[in-house]
Amino acid sequence: MTTSTALLLADLAGVMVFAASGASAAVAKRLDLFGVVFVGFVAALGGGIVRDLVIDEVPPLAFADWRYATTAAVTAAAIFWLHPQFARLRTTVLVLDAAGLGLFTVTGTLKALDAEVPPVGAVLIGMITAIGGGLVRDLLTGEIPVVLRREIYAVAALTGAILVVLLNVLGYTGPIPLTAAVLLVFGVRLVALRRRWSAPVPTPRTGVPPQ
Amino acid sequence: MTTSTALLLADLAGVMVFAASGASAAVAKRLDLFGVVFVGFVAALGGGIVRDLVIDEVPPLAFADWRYATTAAVTAAAIFWLHPQFARLRTTVLVLDAAGLGLFTVTGTLKALDAEVPPVGAVLIGMITAIGGGLVRDLLTGEIPVVLRREIYAVAALTGAILVVLLNVLGYTGPIPLTAAVLLVFGVRLVALRRRWSAPVPTPRTGVPPQ
Amino acid sequence: MTTSTALLLADLAGVMVFAASGASAAVAKRLDLFGVVFVGFVAALGGGIVRDLVIDEVPPLAFADWRYATTAAVTAAAIFWLHPQFARLRTTVLVLDAAGLGLFTVTGTLKALDAEVPPVGAVLIGMITAIGGGLVRDLLTGEIPVVLRREIYAVAALTGAILVVLLNVLGYTGPIPLTAAVLLVFGVRLVALRRRWSAPVPTPRTGVPPQ
Repeated sequence: MTTSTALLLADLAGVMVFAASGASAAVAKRLDLFGVVFVGFVAALGGGIVRDLVIDEVPPLAFADWRYATTAAVTAAAIFWLHPQFARLRTTVLVLDAAGLGLFTVTGTLKALDAEVPPVGAVLIGMITAIGGGLVRDLLTGEIPVVLRREIYAVAALTGAILVVLLNVLGYTGPIPLTAAVLLVFGVRLVALRRRWSAPVPTPRTGVPPQ
Repeated sequence: MTTSTALLLADLAGVMVFAASGASAAVAKRLDLFGVVFVGFVAALGGGIVRDLVIDEVPPLAFADWRYATTAAVTAAAIFWLHPQFARLRTTVLVLDAAGLGLFTVTGTLKALDAEVPPVGAVLIGMITAIGGGLVRDLLTGEIPVVLRREIYAVAALTGAILVVLLNVLGYTGPIPLTAAVLLVFGVRLVALRRRWSAPVPTPRTGVPPQ
Repeated sequence: MTTSTALLLADLAGVMVFAASGASAAVAKRLDLFGVVFVGFVAALGGGIVRDLVIDEVPPLAFADWRYATTAAVTAAAIFWLHPQFARLRTTVLVLDAAGLGLFTVTGTLKALDAEVPPVGAVLIGMITAIGGGLVRDLLTGEIPVVLRREIYAVAALTGAILVVLLNVLGYTGPIPLTAAVLLVFGVRLVALRRRWSAPVPTPRTGVPPQ
């Protein structure tokens, strides 16, 4: 198996995981079959579409390579019918989602660096690739995005994107350091879930009850 | 009348219809005059803007050709003042909307194919051109997009986009097959409205009442 | 100080003001530290990112020049900790926001004209640059965008964008006429705030109570 085949397979695994999470959210809102597939598609591919627009890789991979859209659509449709079983796999889903987060962070940051985006921009693009799909999923289903609320999720992506940029500056761009960056995001996210770590929330003003 | 004049007129008719539907939704939410015009503009031109960004046709037609923005703005402003009369035309609006859906699906898919997007991507871009404006309209007015819920709307667009790609592969790209594709979307949508067809919704889990 | 340094400083001042307004909205919704910084970033830079995508200036300035993202992030983080003091500065914030609105309108319209977008499109792009960030801020925090509701806000931007295009057509593109355009937006917005001017809202249908 060549490196690019490995990357493609890993990328499609991330697409599957995020499509499943988007489809689950849509099922919970009782959207119809099309709505479930569409939200799954957006959750899986929305972050990458924004990334590709921003680095001028057009048409975005989600439209240029049929395997992406097909993987997302088939996964989301499967969740439409299998959601009761899927719901029981909550822990598995969270672990897979953390893996997807790590993967999309690293591939997104690398693509931005390849497009000669400077370091700070590449970090932001890497993070947006990883969290963008989930953001749009929540907007489409009428929720304030969960990533903006109470969990170490985007921060895990941010950490990984910074590591990728640092490794790139230092010249470590082989598969081993990049895998380490994926594992860093994955690990931070899992530990945060386990220990219920959260980013701090604002102190309420005196006399004003929290909303 | 040349073909391109016919296409332009048809395209502007679609813009009018979608601007009217966006403006009506904004009036129902009691947005102000600017809000009504803005939501009308986005509903009419949002899908096409996304399409043009994705196929790297910049600046998008909505900004490059003043007739698009002007048509959308004038229509939406007219609805602001005439909405009580417009509300009585509900059936007319639904029929016009179905026509707009067919038109935008076909022109969107064709533009994607012209930009050398592969078949699956072109189908998706055609569908997004047709349903994108309505999606953003609903997000701006605080609704879960109706296209994701209970009607055969996006599916009609999807059917038409697939037909356009098939016709293109087979070399049938003259006005007659393309008109047939517009009519297919139009017809599927109208029959769905008439018979109250819906895409299936997920089965609730046992013991869990629908939300 | 050269003209381009003056423009950069003015632009970053606009970024600070809009980051502060976005962060305040996020604090009010009790988002976590990351959410506050992210909403501040989007409110400050979202309009410009859309502008740059539409005029094909990629990667957008928000990713290409680290000073933009850093200014937005530091400002938003400061609001996270200082929000009680900031809340007392409500009038100051509204005045700064009006200044930011004027500035973003003028720079956005100019960039669109430089990219050879025709007049109507350039007006729209200038307005979207100025109001886009606030729109996305409201969507992310679960509100119908305030700019679409009851205030002369977008209309102030629209006025300024039209003035910039007219000045450009007439050949007045020096710093003095452009400053006049910034002041026009600023002034219209402040007078509207002071006099509680609003754009008209639709007349309710007889017998239908306003929603």
